[in-house]
Amino acid sequence: MSKRIAGPEIERLIQLLAKVPGLGPRSARRAALHLIKKKEQLFEPLSAAMNEALEKVRVCSVCGNVDTADPCSICTDPRRDAGTLIVVEDVADLWALERAAAMNVRYHVLGGTLSPLDGVGPEDLNIAGLINRVAEGGVGEIIIAVNATVEGQTTAHYITDQMADMGVKVTRLAHGVPVGGELDYLDEGTLAAALKSRTVF
Amino acid sequence: MSKRIAGPEIERLIQLLAKVPGLGPRSARRAALHLIKKKEQLFEPLSAAMNEALEKVRVCSVCGNVDTADPCSICTDPRRDAGTLIVVEDVADLWALERAAAMNVRYHVLGGTLSPLDGVGPEDLNIAGLINRVAEGGVGEIIIAVNATVEGQTTAHYITDQMADMGVKVTRLAHGVPVGGELDYLDEGTLAAALKSRTVF
Repeated sequence: MSKRIAGPEIERLIQLLAKVPGLGPRSARRAALHLIKKKEQLFEPLSAAMNEALEKVRVCSVCGNVDTADPCSICTDPRRDAGTLIVVEDVADLWALERAAAMNVRYHVLGGTLSPLDGVGPEDLNIAGLINRVAEGGVGEIIIAVNATVEGQTTAHYITDQMADMGVKVTRLAHGVPVGGELDYLDEGTLAAALKSRTVF
Repeated sequence: MSKRIAGPEIERLIQLLAKVPGLGPRSARRAALHLIKKKEQLFEPLSAAMNEALEKVRVCSVCGNVDTADPCSICTDPRRDAGTLIVVEDVADLWALERAAAMNVRYHVLGGTLSPLDGVGPEDLNIAGLINRVAEGGVGEIIIAVNATVEGQTTAHYITDQMADMGVKVTRLAHGVPVGGELDYLDEGTLAAALKSRTVF
């Protein structure tokens, strides 16, 4: 706001809310006003939840997941297969795969993808940690579940190269038609990949 | 999330963030993750700003604005014309009018509009407060700046009736073509109103 309307505390709250992904300057104002109006129902509980998360949440030193415990609850869960690691770019991808609940295994969060143009090299990602985990033994398969973007695929190739002599199987997610997807809307690359990897009916 | 992934503290944070207008369940997850990743740059300052706003922000007992002072900084500003009150539905409308910075006057926030179907009657709005302010004297004009909806117009008529014998001038915002607007995209009602209220060029 160009003009001081409602005290520096509210303006500072709006400025910071506007930096939250999904909110912009306009919706941050609406959000701030909503919080102030719903003080007991939302503002106070949200503030308390944020204080608690700030105090307790940390990054897992083993896999890079965020949790209130370090190592995280996934890394310490004895019911999970420690012999398979799913390598993801981001914690959001880990959460997405957990929601799919298809495999009861462990993860490794890279924290991004290789991107020479943006100055992101292997040392900026948690790749050394992955190599250490494999070198310690016990890992039989690495499933590379990075995004199907140029950067993601570059990263996948780099990791595959690093793992070449470590006696670990490296796999990647299948390409194909999304479940519920319509062929008409799919790009040629996906259709070609789905044809190539066709399965017996 | 159907499955416990990252500790109850993070899930509670996501649940509460999802109630903020502008965020949904999916963007709340992204927002929570972003906050955790940008702990020092965003999460800590935002949490501190929320704590401070929670502690200091209150509703002005005179006009219904939100501010850190009561009466608010608008009600106590001696440079503002206390003889004119702009009546708005919501604090967001007050902020919008302040951004326009067209008039240096005071406000009265109703806190909603009359809506018999939703059970909102005059006693649920801050109309008694408006009548008191006018009865105390010193107010020469009330500008009704409610939304141009059915409920807004019903509320405007109700307030005009209440003010009938109080010796105060009641005006409302002009209808017309929005500045920068294209005629082709405007509804007939707006165009008819703009023609009726045409001004000399």
